[in-house]
Amino acid sequence: MTKKVLVLPGDGIGSEIIKEAVKVLGALNLDIEIDAALIGGAAVDATGEPLPAVTLEKAQAADAILLGAVGGPKWDANPMEKRPEKGLLAIRSKLGLFANLRPAILYPQLAEVSSLKPEIVAGLDILIVRELTGGIYFGQPRGIRTLENGDREGFNTYVYNETEIRRIGRQAFEAAQKRNKRLCSIDKSNVLEVTVLWKEVMTELAKEYPDVELSHMLVDNAAMQLVKAPKQFDVLVTGNMFGDILSDEAAMLTGSIGMLPSASLDENGKGMYEPCHGSAPDIAGQNLANPLATILSVAMMLRYSLNEEAAAARIEAAVEKVLDQGLRTGDIMSAGCTQIGTEAMGDAVVAAL
Amino acid sequence: MTKKVLVLPGDGIGSEIIKEAVKVLGALNLDIEIDAALIGGAAVDATGEPLPAVTLEKAQAADAILLGAVGGPKWDANPMEKRPEKGLLAIRSKLGLFANLRPAILYPQLAEVSSLKPEIVAGLDILIVRELTGGIYFGQPRGIRTLENGDREGFNTYVYNETEIRRIGRQAFEAAQKRNKRLCSIDKSNVLEVTVLWKEVMTELAKEYPDVELSHMLVDNAAMQLVKAPKQFDVLVTGNMFGDILSDEAAMLTGSIGMLPSASLDENGKGMYEPCHGSAPDIAGQNLANPLATILSVAMMLRYSLNEEAAAARIEAAVEKVLDQGLRTGDIMSAGCTQIGTEAMGDAVVAAL
Ligand SMILES: CC(C)[C@H](C(=O)O)[C@@H](O)C(=O)O
Ligand SMILES: CC(C)[C@H](C(=O)O)[C@@H](O)C(=O)O
Repeated sequence: MTKKVLVLPGDGIGSEIIKEAVKVLGALNLDIEIDAALIGGAAVDATGEPLPAVTLEKAQAADAILLGAVGGPKWDANPMEKRPEKGLLAIRSKLGLFANLRPAILYPQLAEVSSLKPEIVAGLDILIVRELTGGIYFGQPRGIRTLENGDREGFNTYVYNETEIRRIGRQAFEAAQKRNKRLCSIDKSNVLEVTVLWKEVMTELAKEYPDVELSHMLVDNAAMQLVKAPKQFDVLVTGNMFGDILSDEAAMLTGSIGMLPSASLDENGKGMYEPCHGSAPDIAGQNLANPLATILSVAMMLRYSLNEEAAAARIEAAVEKVLDQGLRTGDIMSAGCTQIGTEAMGDAVVAAL
Repeated sequence: MTKKVLVLPGDGIGSEIIKEAVKVLGALNLDIEIDAALIGGAAVDATGEPLPAVTLEKAQAADAILLGAVGGPKWDANPMEKRPEKGLLAIRSKLGLFANLRPAILYPQLAEVSSLKPEIVAGLDILIVRELTGGIYFGQPRGIRTLENGDREGFNTYVYNETEIRRIGRQAFEAAQKRNKRLCSIDKSNVLEVTVLWKEVMTELAKEYPDVELSHMLVDNAAMQLVKAPKQFDVLVTGNMFGDILSDEAAMLTGSIGMLPSASLDENGKGMYEPCHGSAPDIAGQNLANPLATILSVAMMLRYSLNEEAAAARIEAAVEKVLDQGLRTGDIMSAGCTQIGTEAMGDAVVAAL
C-alpha cells in the first residue's frame, strides 16, 4: 500500500533542506507519495494562519510528516497567535505528538567540531525523551493582564497530570530497554510541586521495568553534568520546557547540531520528523545550510513510522560514507575537508546510497 | 562602627567551607563581629523548621550573611515545607534578596580542568544576573491536587509583574555598565507570555541605558551558545528558573564550580553570599571540599555589602597566589599540582594574604 508523507518546509532554510531530504527519499524508490503544505511564517504570509486548516487535514491523513523549520525575525513582532512557532505547537498538539525523541550523537568524523575536549565527548550517544504536548507550553491560565495598581503581569502555568507523565515515562523506559537500560528522569523536585509528581510517577513506573535502572537528577545539575561528563547518560526523560533547554544543550555538545534529527510520535507511532536545528534565517536561500539533519530525519521516519528499517539504515550508512569522504557543509567544516553547499550535500548522499 | 556578619553553615560540606572562610575573614583584622545560626537540614533536625525564627531575626539584624550550602538525601523525602531548600528560598524571599549575581570566570591557572577546549573558554568572564525572589519559584497557585477522574495533577505558576522585571533589569544594566556594556536578556518569548512581558520591559529599560547594548536570546539557544561560544557574552539577565539552569551550566564551563562565589542583594545592597556549588553530601566531613568559592564569596561580601574594597581585593589576590603556587583541592586537581585538603587550603589563603 502506498504510504503518504507530508512535507512541511516552513521558513528560513526549511525549503532548501527539505528539497534535499525529498531528493534522498525519492532515490530510494519506495512506494511513497509525497505531498507538501504550508506551516509557520510562510503560512502566516499566505493565509494569515500559522497552521492553516488544509495543512492540518493533510497532516492527519498522512502516514508521516517531515518538517523543515519555522520562525524568523520577520514575524517576531506578531501577536502570539500569529507567530510561526504557534503553527508548530498547534500541529504537535492537534496530532497528539507527545513523545519527542532527540538523539545527541557525536559522529567520530566530526569530533573536532565539538567545543568540548575529545575525551569528554568521543563516542557520545545519548537520547533525550521530551514530553511535547503538555507542561508549561500548553498550560492554562496564561497571558498578560493589568493589575489593579496599573502594573502589567505575565503568567503561565506549568502543569502535568499523572496520565501524561506515565505516557511519556513508558516511551522513555521502552527506549531505554532498547539501549543501555539506564534512564535518568530530570526534575526540579526541590522547588516545583509539578515535578514532585513527575518524580513520583517515574518512580512508580520503574517497578514495571525492572530491567531499566532509573535515576533522578535536578535540572540545574543536569545542565552541569551534560557539560562535565555527558557520557554518563543513556536516556534522559523530562518535561516540555526542561527538554527544550537540555536537548539543545546536549545537541550542541556534539558541535554538529546540523547533524541531529528528531522524531515526535503519537500513541500509535505516527510521527513528525524534523531536524533539531532552527530555521537559520541568516543563511537562508544561500545554499549554505546543512541538510543532513533533515536527511537523517527521513531515516528516523522510515524506521519509526513507515516500517522501512532497511531503507533507514541505507540512508544512515550513506551519510557516514559522505562524512568519510570528507565532504562538509560550513557548520561542520574542519581543516583537510572539502566544503560544499546544501545541494551538493544532498547529491553526495544520493550518490552514496 | 562594627559590622555584623551572620554565618549560616547549613548542611553537607557547609560547616567545613564556612570555617575556612571565617578563618580568612578573621585574618583581615577588620572591625567585624561574626555570629552563626542554623538553616536548611541542620535547622530541620534541630528545630523542625528549615528557617527558624531566630535565624531570620539574626539575618535581618546583620549587615551581611555568609551561607555555606543546604540540602542532602537525608531530607529528600520530607514534605516540601520541611525541606532544607525551603529555608534557602524563605530567607531569599523574606530578606528581599531579588538580585542574584553569579560570575562564571575561568582562572587561567585552571584552564585544564574545564571540559571545553582551551580556545573556547580561555579568558572566560561572564556574569549572570538572576532574579531570585519571583517567577515560578514563588508563583501561586501551586501544588498537587486530585482531579475528578481520580488522576493527580501537579501545577506551578510562572509569574512576573513589570515592577519585578524592571528592578532586576536595572541591576543588570548597571552591572553591564561596570563591565563591557553588553547585556543579553534571556527569555522564551516564542512560547511563554510571561517572558514576552519580560522582553518588553527589558527593551523599554534599555532607553535609560544608552551606553549598554541590549540583545535578546531564547533560553534554548542560550543553553547552546554557552557551550558553543561562551565568550560572546558579557552580562546575561534572566528569571529565577532559567537563571538556575543557565548559571549552573555556565559555572560548569569553567570546570571549577568549586571556585565560583555568588551574591544575592536586596534593594539597599545588603546581601547574602554563598558558593555556587551545593552541599556535596558525598564528600562531607572528609576535609575534601574546596573552600575557595566560599572564601571568594567573602570577598564579594566585603565589596558589595561592607564597603571594604581593599580587603576584597586582598582576598582575591591571595587566592590567585595560592593557585599560582600549584595548590589544589581534589575537584580542581591536575597533573603537576599539589593536592591538599579543605583546611590546608584555608591556611594557604591566610598565609598568602
Ligand atoms: C520553535 C519552538 C517553539 C520550539 C520549542 O520550543 O519547542 C523549538 O525550540 C523546539 O525545540 O522544537
Ligand atoms: C537549592 C535550590 C533551591 C537552589 C535554587 O534552585 O535556587 C540552588 O539550586 C541555587 O541555584 O541556589
